[in-house]
Amino acid sequence: MKIGFIGLGQMGAAIARNLIEAGHDVTVWNRSADKAARLVAAGAHLAERPVDAAGGEIVLTMLADDAAVEAVTFGDNGILSSPARPIHVSLSTIGIPLAERLMQAHAEAGSVLVSAPVFGRPQAAAAAQLFVVAAGAADAIATCQPLFDTIGQRTFLIGDHPPQANLMKLCGNFLIGSVIEGLAEAMTLGRRGGIPKDRMLEVLTGTLFGAPIYNVYGDILAREKFHPAGFTAPLGLKDMNLVAEAANDARVPMPVLGVVRDHLLATIAQEGDTIDWSALGRIVERDAGF
Amino acid sequence: MKIGFIGLGQMGAAIARNLIEAGHDVTVWNRSADKAARLVAAGAHLAERPVDAAGGEIVLTMLADDAAVEAVTFGDNGILSSPARPIHVSLSTIGIPLAERLMQAHAEAGSVLVSAPVFGRPQAAAAAQLFVVAAGAADAIATCQPLFDTIGQRTFLIGDHPPQANLMKLCGNFLIGSVIEGLAEAMTLGRRGGIPKDRMLEVLTGTLFGAPIYNVYGDILAREKFHPAGFTAPLGLKDMNLVAEAANDARVPMPVLGVVRDHLLATIAQEGDTIDWSALGRIVERDAGF
Amino acid sequence: MKIGFIGLGQMGAAIARNLIEAGHDVTVWNRSADKAARLVAAGAHLAERPVDAAGGEIVLTMLADDAAVEAVTFGDNGILSSPARPIHVSLSTIGIPLAERLMQAHAEAGSVLVSAPVFGRPQAAAAAQLFVVAAGAADAIATCQPLFDTIGQRTFLIGDHPPQANLMKLCGNFLIGSVIEGLAEAMTLGRRGGIPKDRMLEVLTGTLFGAPIYNVYGDILAREKFHPAGFTAPLGLKDMNLVAEAANDARVPMPVLGVVRDHLLATIAQEGDTIDWSALGRIVERDAGF
Amino acid sequence: MKIGFIGLGQMGAAIARNLIEAGHDVTVWNRSADKAARLVAAGAHLAERPVDAAGGEIVLTMLADDAAVEAVTFGDNGILSSPARPIHVSLSTIGIPLAERLMQAHAEAGSVLVSAPVFGRPQAAAAAQLFVVAAGAADAIATCQPLFDTIGQRTFLIGDHPPQANLMKLCGNFLIGSVIEGLAEAMTLGRRGGIPKDRMLEVLTGTLFGAPIYNVYGDILAREKFHPAGFTAPLGLKDMNLVAEAANDARVPMPVLGVVRDHLLATIAQEGDTIDWSALGRIVERDAGF
Repeated sequence: MKIGFIGLGQMGAAIARNLIEAGHDVTVWNRSADKAARLVAAGAHLAERPVDAAGGEIVLTMLADDAAVEAVTFGDNGILSSPARPIHVSLSTIGIPLAERLMQAHAEAGSVLVSAPVFGRPQAAAAAQLFVVAAGAADAIATCQPLFDTIGQRTFLIGDHPPQANLMKLCGNFLIGSVIEGLAEAMTLGRRGGIPKDRMLEVLTGTLFGAPIYNVYGDILAREKFHPAGFTAPLGLKDMNLVAEAANDARVPMPVLGVVRDHLLATIAQEGDTIDWSALGRIVERDAGF
Repeated sequence: MKIGFIGLGQMGAAIARNLIEAGHDVTVWNRSADKAARLVAAGAHLAERPVDAAGGEIVLTMLADDAAVEAVTFGDNGILSSPARPIHVSLSTIGIPLAERLMQAHAEAGSVLVSAPVFGRPQAAAAAQLFVVAAGAADAIATCQPLFDTIGQRTFLIGDHPPQANLMKLCGNFLIGSVIEGLAEAMTLGRRGGIPKDRMLEVLTGTLFGAPIYNVYGDILAREKFHPAGFTAPLGLKDMNLVAEAANDARVPMPVLGVVRDHLLATIAQEGDTIDWSALGRIVERDAGF
Repeated sequence: MKIGFIGLGQMGAAIARNLIEAGHDVTVWNRSADKAARLVAAGAHLAERPVDAAGGEIVLTMLADDAAVEAVTFGDNGILSSPARPIHVSLSTIGIPLAERLMQAHAEAGSVLVSAPVFGRPQAAAAAQLFVVAAGAADAIATCQPLFDTIGQRTFLIGDHPPQANLMKLCGNFLIGSVIEGLAEAMTLGRRGGIPKDRMLEVLTGTLFGAPIYNVYGDILAREKFHPAGFTAPLGLKDMNLVAEAANDARVPMPVLGVVRDHLLATIAQEGDTIDWSALGRIVERDAGF
Repeated sequence: MKIGFIGLGQMGAAIARNLIEAGHDVTVWNRSADKAARLVAAGAHLAERPVDAAGGEIVLTMLADDAAVEAVTFGDNGILSSPARPIHVSLSTIGIPLAERLMQAHAEAGSVLVSAPVFGRPQAAAAAQLFVVAAGAADAIATCQPLFDTIGQRTFLIGDHPPQANLMKLCGNFLIGSVIEGLAEAMTLGRRGGIPKDRMLEVLTGTLFGAPIYNVYGDILAREKFHPAGFTAPLGLKDMNLVAEAANDARVPMPVLGVVRDHLLATIAQEGDTIDWSALGRIVERDAGF
């Protein structure tokens, strides 16, 4: 299939590479050209402007924040200006207001938005083991399904209203944050009582908490492997702020979200911008005097 | 093996029954005699006083709170007054100060305490699928292991200091509470955005949250099956208060614990004493205007 | 003095009236013209566009939110397009990013911004008893001082960096929110124990808490006078969100802010948009089963 | 009047001294005798046992915690064993369950309890500027009134049910804690924005927050005068735990209380036991990276 891919960070590059290797005709664009060069070496075409990556049947975007998605979508050289009217598959974790604005703009332009945010850290992306959470018009999703099958292990269909996939993703990311916070509090109390963190983790994952999320983040917390970051604290904070924006607009009080956000602020204030977001567990320990 | 079993509530009765059916010679005691009668019908001997259930090699206690454990252990007719000096296997979820006091009292009496709290709701107890978290002297635990194998699916050894098993259990129960709270906040936000609760749950458990705890409590929350309670809100609050006591003594701030406790207080204040503790999710929804 | 006044809501109308009565030559503008009519009846000139109110020495703005301030300042008919280059006195409670943007835009336009947010509810505005918190260039503030003396009982100078006055105001509003929340929690506990709310308030204000803020909000809480609102819950939430934005940018965790925001969300979700923001105390009581 | 005074810590010694200087015939008892010696030098009689201080018309107790009050009241040499049946004026900040138990025990013994906890730090006690919050039988309070007038600047009568005075005191202490927390959050945000702490305090106390509590604790926070402690962090935590116990029993969620307690835990964990409880403000600043 002739497709475009915009956004070649840690996640995007891994996903794009899988699409190239699956035999798709991929045109890539990235704000900093050096990252695109590596994909070109792997067989991709190079687009000079975002719109040049939107000449095929589908264009996928995987970008760090709302502003980046806005930049490549709206404006003179953005996706919406492409006469090809490709399906826009938005893989990024973005806010609900932007998702609604994208949906509306595509409707006005005669094109279609499919929101398809993914769960998984960079390793999962490289291994094509992502989970895809998709919402949009059924026929558009059907067209995209082969791509989802290439990049992920499973696709979940939420419905035909694209922003609901984004909301599902935000809820999931909030839950991940709440798991990190909960684990950190439990491990800190256990550690004070003489239970090693990895021993506690073994009991938890061996009993009721045997889910990937506890294995992945439990291990990071137990070994304090906060560098290099798989997902930095500022990115985590950005996502929690998107959840807070959605909760605010929906009038839903979420006190645990407040705790997670405050601890991410403390993490960034005390540890800087490059640390993994799970280092909020270090704040929990430090508060307890460790 | 000749053993005693004290405390025949929902959990205790199911466990004792499994021990009887495994062929052990079980003497039971319960504060209200009618519950004991059913076990006697199943083959148990009836003890008139707690001490009368402590004449064998091991005596197990499974009681609702610290006060009940104190009542059957200390005092004239308590376990400690038995000349048989059985190993005391404490299955209950109790506080750390009491666990330390029990340990010391047994040491002074020349007997041994094994703390072996269990994870699992009544159905798991009936199905002998509990998880046992044990700490105590190695030889005593070895003596108890056949019993643990009978009542549970797996035993985790924490070490030789009994209160650490109790702390492990408290940390686990806190984490369960934090999962309920997190799920409730996420589901409420999703519901406001039009995502049905069971759809969200399907995505969560199909991706990163595929653990028993999310299946069990997610289902309860999605269907609002808060009656009859598997574990009542006052019992949940009692456990969270034991965690808070441990956190207070250890100087460990646990903000999510505070959220869970406050929502349990609101649950009891608004819904009464007989509702399942997971109904704190109803408070989360109600706060959002549902 | 020849001045302009933009924004004639409850607060703005009261302030503008005091300026007119003090003999100033006041030109007013309001988005909905009917509110302006009343001021014209009191002696004001009517401006057709915001820029028409910016032809004198000073133009004051008192608007409900950041968007309204942006609308009257930037753009073709905004304050910045006035060749008179008046001092712009921003009385509104606005966010720090907008304050910085206003400051910069005025610097580029060759005019001057004085941030002068005020403390006080509508009655205080009408009685010319506001507190003015001002920051900006010293000579500009000196020019404005007679106006501040007319509308308020006292002016506090924060420094020459306008956004600091806005930050001071946001911190003050946060503290008001925290006082309401604290009072509500204390009064609810007291009420459960049989202490009437007004009795508790009498003790508090008669001992260590004898400040206007406790008198004003204590009385509202004790009598549950949430209608008509002096300051609605959505406006309170807007301000708390501006504080949260500042805290987020500054990496300052503020857990009590999180509590106040969540309770305002619950207030709006359960009570609607027209209730006073202090009705968050009703949520506190309702959570406790009242 | 012939009275007894039990408990000669910082607060108790200052109060007892004022009673002696007012001409009362005071018999004192303290667990460690050296503190009593100073009062004897000032004119007091020395009691060998608590009961020996309970031979007059009134016996006052001012002790650090519930356990100390229990120790001097119940038991062989306790106040209750005095045949003189003096009015027991309990000045200490104690929990509601103990207050109820004291009330009942006195009723059974044919004596009377007056709960009369006080607001004020040691300097206020020395200056006879305490606020007394009293509850109990009207005639008993009338008998005590001259003493209250001697030690304090004003007495508030809560009613005839003694525990309500204790609850009023706990609510007040909670509010003080919430003020410290709120101030610390606001000052930290302001400081990050370049507003000196004392400048912010000046604006706050000069506008809506002009109450003693903001002056006293604002000054301590602005100057970071946490040593020597007027009221140590462990004592503050003890009081907040008593509030939490009351809130738990009354089923009243108090999220700000949770924040204050967590910050006190962090204070003690990081700063030790001798620091003033207002040092929780240091934790707030530290979380923000200062």
